[in-house]
Amino acid sequence: MTMLKPGATVGILGGGQLARMLALAGARLGLKIHIYSPVANDPAFEVCAARTCADFLDEAALAAFAESVDVVTYEFENVPARTAEVLEAHRPVRPNPKVLALTQDRLVEKQFVKSLGIATAPFADVTSVETLAEAVAQLGRPSILKTRRFGYDGKGQTKIVEGVELADAFKAVGEAPSILEGFVRFAKEVSVVAARGIDGEFRAYDLCENVHENHILATTTAPAAVSAATARAAIDKARAIAEAAEYVGVIAVELFVVADAPGERLVVNEIAPRVHNSGHWTLDGAVTSQFEQHMRAVAGMPLGATRRHGRQVVMRNLIGADADNWAKILREDGACLHLYGKTESRPGRKMGHVTRVVS
Amino acid sequence: MTMLKPGATVGILGGGQLARMLALAGARLGLKIHIYSPVANDPAFEVCAARTCADFLDEAALAAFAESVDVVTYEFENVPARTAEVLEAHRPVRPNPKVLALTQDRLVEKQFVKSLGIATAPFADVTSVETLAEAVAQLGRPSILKTRRFGYDGKGQTKIVEGVELADAFKAVGEAPSILEGFVRFAKEVSVVAARGIDGEFRAYDLCENVHENHILATTTAPAAVSAATARAAIDKARAIAEAAEYVGVIAVELFVVADAPGERLVVNEIAPRVHNSGHWTLDGAVTSQFEQHMRAVAGMPLGATRRHGRQVVMRNLIGADADNWAKILREDGACLHLYGKTESRPGRKMGHVTRVVS
Repeated sequence: MTMLKPGATVGILGGGQLARMLALAGARLGLKIHIYSPVANDPAFEVCAARTCADFLDEAALAAFAESVDVVTYEFENVPARTAEVLEAHRPVRPNPKVLALTQDRLVEKQFVKSLGIATAPFADVTSVETLAEAVAQLGRPSILKTRRFGYDGKGQTKIVEGVELADAFKAVGEAPSILEGFVRFAKEVSVVAARGIDGEFRAYDLCENVHENHILATTTAPAAVSAATARAAIDKARAIAEAAEYVGVIAVELFVVADAPGERLVVNEIAPRVHNSGHWTLDGAVTSQFEQHMRAVAGMPLGATRRHGRQVVMRNLIGADADNWAKILREDGACLHLYGKTESRPGRKMGHVTRVVS
Repeated sequence: MTMLKPGATVGILGGGQLARMLALAGARLGLKIHIYSPVANDPAFEVCAARTCADFLDEAALAAFAESVDVVTYEFENVPARTAEVLEAHRPVRPNPKVLALTQDRLVEKQFVKSLGIATAPFADVTSVETLAEAVAQLGRPSILKTRRFGYDGKGQTKIVEGVELADAFKAVGEAPSILEGFVRFAKEVSVVAARGIDGEFRAYDLCENVHENHILATTTAPAAVSAATARAAIDKARAIAEAAEYVGVIAVELFVVADAPGERLVVNEIAPRVHNSGHWTLDGAVTSQFEQHMRAVAGMPLGATRRHGRQVVMRNLIGADADNWAKILREDGACLHLYGKTESRPGRKMGHVTRVVS
């Protein structure tokens, strides 16, 4: 496919804040947006003219959606394989659905990363209490048991420390197919947010540093306080992953920086085949936002400049009641407030974020 | 009225690019948007969920629209008085409709500015060929005959140079009630884009410098290359105008800089009671865009920081076929492209703009 023209329609699966910010960025470029989500009051529906509210397995709705758009993309990795298959029969899906298969399953993802010669946390396949026992014998305690599929923000995982009964731990993850991950004593969590275009061009934002609270991203700071060599190495790993996956769009690669080696060592933690919370700072802190970059890439357009504004950019998530401080944030000099238009606030729910560019 | 909360709905009259960019900025703040326009394929309809496509004089549609929103604003000054009256019976209209009456009529606007002790071009009321002859005798040639109402981008005006027959000139403006403006030999055209909040707070962006081609804005450069005293004086005049009009929202004041006096002298040319093309640079070149600033103001929220990014910001309009260069602009390092989603390109039609921040 050649480059889409302004006026073309990008279909987005999912209607959350990522889809909303993608839609807003697409509008800037003169693209039309069609949101597909099963949730009627999803925030992305508020910012576009074409909407399909239907189940992800409603094949008639999927076919009609695909026929009405020029390319399909998605805001989340848990798109069912059959959904992608139905859509692909009609229109290009970007990033390509092979990437979904890779990133939906922690075991497959880790094997893929390992196959590229890139370090991950040590891991073992767990299908039963017995295989869990073998895995714990191999990787030790503490270690983390995670379901292979559908985990996010700390859901579907449990820590195995001294004294934990393995049968209880396996129950805690619903006795689902899982992996055990060896515990990585990391000094920092960082992420690469980057894009690959249809012509193979690759552009990364500054490596950024993430702090999680209660398993949810709390702040991202760009650039990360690591050596230039570490930053380069992290971006090179993301590039190798994107190239091996024949990736088109924005990709995020989360890594641990381990300080046990002489210097810094990097371990890939997770791949997100989409725009990512740790890239939200680019909306106010970079020449091209990750959202515009993704829309450019999936539309087959050239990638934009990824240069950072200011000396440092700090993004803080507004989780649950944090967003009640919106009026205070609006009064703060230089704070850029983003609210996602969610009607209901719940503890742990991402309601918005605030970006501060330090000049 | 107190501050609206995120989740509240702002109604916008008009569906062009200004309404579109207002809607996108409102979404960032978690506001819902309802667009009212009589033109079915207007670009702002693409970026919001609530839409009314009806005539501006359809009183039932206006009442239903007003009832469904929390505050009403507009993207253009030619809102009929009756429209504003119907809306105001239901919801606050911001900026207040007195401002519409002021800015819809060039004669009333100039008299208002003059009443504040602020210089305008010399002007005279024209209602006939006879009064035109008197006005030309007073103000000389060259001078410019402009209809009092509904002129923009050079429409509804004609230049009276030596040899022009006054009857022909009056015909050229449709024999409508008009004003004759004395010709101002200006060195530069500049504009103040500023906002006034419901609490009277006033914040201006850097004075910017405008170049017109064929009576249409071609480029805006911020900051304007004038003395600090001139920049301050221009902003003070805009503030005086906003205060006298009890203004709430973003206002633009276009001025001529005349270099005939010792130093620089300022003459107010025109007031726009809305976001303005010469403020588009703020989308990429300032902490808070003029669109977010307007939405904050009309929602009763605190105003945002107006600081400029970079040493200089240059905005260039993409008029008609200029927008066909979109792919080239997307490839240009650091250029920020905005397209308005207009389906039909016509000579003289504003299709988008591109901003370049010089760091």
